[in-house]
Amino acid sequence: MAKTSTYLDYNAAAPLLDEARAAIIDALDINANPSSVHASGRAAKAIVAKARRQVAALVGAKPDHVIFTSGATEAAQMLLTPHYSMGRSPLKISHLYVCAADHPCTLAGGQFDKERISLIPVLASGVMDIDALKEMLNAHDKSGGLPLVVCHAANNETGVIQPFAEIGKIIKAAGGMFVLDAVQAVGRIKFDITDTCADYLILSSHKIGGPKGAGAVVAASDLVMPLPLIRGGGQERGHRGGTEAVMNIAGFGAAAEAAQFSSDRFNTLADMQNHLETGLRKILPDIVIHGQDENKVADRLPNTSFFTVPNAKAETLQINFDLAGFAVSAGSACSSGKVGRSHVLTAMGVEGEEGAIRVSFGLQTTKNEIDAFLEAFAQIMARMKR
Amino acid sequence: MAKTSTYLDYNAAAPLLDEARAAIIDALDINANPSSVHASGRAAKAIVAKARRQVAALVGAKPDHVIFTSGATEAAQMLLTPHYSMGRSPLKISHLYVCAADHPCTLAGGQFDKERISLIPVLASGVMDIDALKEMLNAHDKSGGLPLVVCHAANNETGVIQPFAEIGKIIKAAGGMFVLDAVQAVGRIKFDITDTCADYLILSSHKIGGPKGAGAVVAASDLVMPLPLIRGGGQERGHRGGTEAVMNIAGFGAAAEAAQFSSDRFNTLADMQNHLETGLRKILPDIVIHGQDENKVADRLPNTSFFTVPNAKAETLQINFDLAGFAVSAGSACSSGKVGRSHVLTAMGVEGEEGAIRVSFGLQTTKNEIDAFLEAFAQIMARMKR
Repeated sequence: MAKTSTYLDYNAAAPLLDEARAAIIDALDINANPSSVHASGRAAKAIVAKARRQVAALVGAKPDHVIFTSGATEAAQMLLTPHYSMGRSPLKISHLYVCAADHPCTLAGGQFDKERISLIPVLASGVMDIDALKEMLNAHDKSGGLPLVVCHAANNETGVIQPFAEIGKIIKAAGGMFVLDAVQAVGRIKFDITDTCADYLILSSHKIGGPKGAGAVVAASDLVMPLPLIRGGGQERGHRGGTEAVMNIAGFGAAAEAAQFSSDRFNTLADMQNHLETGLRKILPDIVIHGQDENKVADRLPNTSFFTVPNAKAETLQINFDLAGFAVSAGSACSSGKVGRSHVLTAMGVEGEEGAIRVSFGLQTTKNEIDAFLEAFAQIMARMKR
Repeated sequence: MAKTSTYLDYNAAAPLLDEARAAIIDALDINANPSSVHASGRAAKAIVAKARRQVAALVGAKPDHVIFTSGATEAAQMLLTPHYSMGRSPLKISHLYVCAADHPCTLAGGQFDKERISLIPVLASGVMDIDALKEMLNAHDKSGGLPLVVCHAANNETGVIQPFAEIGKIIKAAGGMFVLDAVQAVGRIKFDITDTCADYLILSSHKIGGPKGAGAVVAASDLVMPLPLIRGGGQERGHRGGTEAVMNIAGFGAAAEAAQFSSDRFNTLADMQNHLETGLRKILPDIVIHGQDENKVADRLPNTSFFTVPNAKAETLQINFDLAGFAVSAGSACSSGKVGRSHVLTAMGVEGEEGAIRVSFGLQTTKNEIDAFLEAFAQIMARMKR
């Protein structure tokens, strides 16, 4: 690597916030297991309780309805199950409906068999095809069980924001259950669980500046809950066994408090995004910015730009950016080293084999870094033309 | 709390080793997701790869056969399943046999239905009833699937060491599969997977001085593997989805390297244990030290003493120790705040309602701390006699 890397891959993992770092370091000195009843154990338990309040506050939920997990993928695996219970009575889910542009962790369908999973298509803009959703829910036969719908609030690759409140209303009207993957949305757009009609949220720590290795299921109410995925001790009020990852949870909590949404934060990011995209278009007028182009406009996260350079493979571009010292991604970092065609672009009906480059940033990103990135892009384009 | 607590609850969670702390702090500066292909992502991936070699070395396994999880409970939930595969062919397990003195995380039976779980009894010493195991495996009908046996290598409450190599041979002779919970054994006694006949080990980071929130499945070979518990991305070679908890894994790896067994370490701990138990007997001659008493002697971990004071409830004693500034436990810290009768004592056929106090320590524990604990014990006993 020629020089220190400029990190523009926040949607894969955001850099640790100072607040999260401090909370982690503090937690390192607590020896005990939070389940131990002695003073040291109670100190560990208090850390977890504080973080639970912080994470709940981020999404307007009750602390008691936050269940900490090892990450969003575990949370998805726990929620996407046919087996729920209402108190002691089992509640059956017969079919899972997944948005086709969802993250691989929900697209995998959790505990459902393949034949019990259907994909909800998205439009060319990346927004869910609402009419298709309505049709699917109308056709659902409830005699075998309820429908469960999972959808992301904001897309990790394109940044496209789904009309999740509208989606939630449709699901509720159809008597279904709604899991909303809020991983990329919280902190970046105004978000409150009570505005969503979601029954459960999926959250991730390392997408909001907390450490990797923490996530949460947040329930709108605990009347109906999935059967535990990980049994064992009675931690997390019986919903998730295993000794709590105290330092991760502490860091997640601190990040949740620090990442609270504000319009100022939004505007700062949106200005940066506008600066980046204006610059990209100036360098390459025929660049395709997904979710922003022509008649395929959608609401997007203010920190994400996903673009295709006609006739240039994203993998090649990504390597060029890496060599120039810029960490960006070609699609999502969803699995180990695998670079394949983006399923999100496929779902949007984007043709061509180029793929796309994702630039995602945060409040720590400076205008100078974006300018340097634009300069590198101009140089790479010039080299490629030769 | 009157004064700084003296921590004697290592079996619930060992204090973080300096080596683990340093590795965690180093990992905090790595922004990226280990699945990202850019330089920053590769740096994160390298940390995980190093830790994998360190954890493998602790138990004499191959790095490729280590699968990181969020902890031992998740590892148990993953391994205790009827659904294994040999390459692409499913391999069915029809029944789970669990040692009755196992930790709650395996005792819960993972993904098996209750009617497919049988308990293997233990003797009054706490050692597994080998004859009962043989009988159970002989009676197992393989036409429905193979038998799966899970047992702990060393007990978290009593410190009693199971004859796991012998148990492994019996299971192999019967054509069964063997999951060995090595959580409390590694680092404390000589332990190598190749000496055990175990097909899979369960390991935990925070019992060996690493952070909470990491554990591992270690396979003797990857020919036969359980179906993933957590799907999603292709992390951990497809065996466990979800972004790796990089700092936890880094700390776990460093702790694994620092916790390598040696006879010197063993002898230091054993001397401390002997000093403690001699002192306890001097103060209270009719104290019952489980696994060490009269004709109920068993091999035990050198860092654990589990004792009953006749006519004194362990919960009361525990509170007294806590007030005096000593963190010890009354049974295991397996679930949130719950203090019930020890199922381990019940399995050993120990009668009476007193329960028992567990003192567990490590190489950071000083002789002065043990002496102070003995003094506190003498004072509590004197108060109780009045």
